[in-house]
Amino acid sequence: MRFARFQSKDGSIRHGIVEGDAIAVIAGDLLGSRQRTGEGVRLSDVRLLAPIIPPNLIAIGRNYLAHAQEGNDDAPKAPIVFIKTTSAITDPGAAILVPAMAPNEVDYEAELAVVIAKTARDVSEAQALDHVLGYTCANDVSARDCQRNDAQWARGKCFDGFAPLGPWIETELDPTTARVRLILNGETMQDASSALMIFSVRHLISYLSRCMTLLPGTVILTGTPAGCGFARKPPVWLKPGDRVSVAIDGIGELTNTVAAATARAAHQGAF
Amino acid sequence: MRFARFQSKDGSIRHGIVEGDAIAVIAGDLLGSRQRTGEGVRLSDVRLLAPIIPPNLIAIGRNYLAHAQEGNDDAPKAPIVFIKTTSAITDPGAAILVPAMAPNEVDYEAELAVVIAKTARDVSEAQALDHVLGYTCANDVSARDCQRNDAQWARGKCFDGFAPLGPWIETELDPTTARVRLILNGETMQDASSALMIFSVRHLISYLSRCMTLLPGTVILTGTPAGCGFARKPPVWLKPGDRVSVAIDGIGELTNTVAAATARAAHQGAF
Repeated sequence: MRFARFQSKDGSIRHGIVEGDAIAVIAGDLLGSRQRTGEGVRLSDVRLLAPIIPPNLIAIGRNYLAHAQEGNDDAPKAPIVFIKTTSAITDPGAAILVPAMAPNEVDYEAELAVVIAKTARDVSEAQALDHVLGYTCANDVSARDCQRNDAQWARGKCFDGFAPLGPWIETELDPTTARVRLILNGETMQDASSALMIFSVRHLISYLSRCMTLLPGTVILTGTPAGCGFARKPPVWLKPGDRVSVAIDGIGELTNTVAAATARAAHQGAF
Repeated sequence: MRFARFQSKDGSIRHGIVEGDAIAVIAGDLLGSRQRTGEGVRLSDVRLLAPIIPPNLIAIGRNYLAHAQEGNDDAPKAPIVFIKTTSAITDPGAAILVPAMAPNEVDYEAELAVVIAKTARDVSEAQALDHVLGYTCANDVSARDCQRNDAQWARGKCFDGFAPLGPWIETELDPTTARVRLILNGETMQDASSALMIFSVRHLISYLSRCMTLLPGTVILTGTPAGCGFARKPPVWLKPGDRVSVAIDGIGELTNTVAAATARAAHQGAF
């Protein structure tokens, strides 16, 4: 099943279930009691939004060996946890803004994102997937100069538009064998199976749930494969006019444009 | 004016204005259109809660020179930004839980917390305080072993209960001259004026607003003065049974107990 969040032409924002070219509208709580209203809308008549605004957006660093190595790092011994602000979340089709403060080294990271359905605290790996609603595509956009020069990664990971999510939440995916790709202006830049994760989705949920209570709706970005722009010779940086997609087989494609920071005043994020 | 969030004996959660020993109940949106309902309750009849659950909880590292120096660090050239999860937020009077995963080096950090009232994006220092609702006390509890050994600070800063907030939001404080203290089991461990901040509240809001949109309700922890437990000889770590208070003149006192992680299953956080 595919849960989308969408805006109709009248401005209303609702959730629904994507079925072919249509969306069956649902009412109630996406994470709790929900019902089909009986109303249907055409996918082409609405604007898809980031499928959820989480209470927290948790991310994992260096979770594919080849990506750790392209950054001259070893495989981590435990998951590297960092947090992105929810203000960074943006919608499918919306612009990733090149920040005026750090315009020179904006990079993409295709990632499988996990959406938590119900409170997870001290859960085992065996129980971990019982707490998952589904999966979506994420782009963990990163300003590499900030990430490299700041004492913490946070600023370089939290600029407006640096967390595109979508196009919808797929409930039926097997997170151990998902093919994750990044396509920049038509060229495939990252292409790997989630089987290559150093710490599996089950492990990440269990580990994080022993650190902190994973509240309903929490989104976890599970790390990016090799092929980032910073590691290429010469490096490839996102620039205004680019078109960047995260494609995950079994989910779909999350496509965003890249725009200059002058667009920022008009940027409303995903809220 | 002092805005509190509180739970009555019937379980209902509301906001109100603290006036002496009473709370004048308010209805509506704390950050928008709000009205006094005319109802009053006694402060002693309710349980105070963390005064706000923010969309993002942003924190600043090493913002007092003497604290940077006690950690053998230099003064930062720009604010060190990191993010705490909202799941870490806990109420006045509630327990800070010593995590089973990292029980040995749990430390306190008394901090002045800023509550953003309205969306702040690319604001100047001159305009910065126009975006503030008020100020509250925060304890930026930190597991120093995680903070030291992990690639990022996030895990060590985000355990459940690691972000006590309260007791209320004071709207009238001058953030440039607030006396910030930490009292552990009756002994003053930190005592400094916010005048000693390397980056002022105005500067922090302006700087952060150029990184990311500060959404209404965002809380910013502005860094801690010298006197942390890790820097003492011998080091002082929080342990079950401790009583730890953050006191800020002009706001009030935020007091929490410390409990073993076995209490975690029952911990509901501030939600």
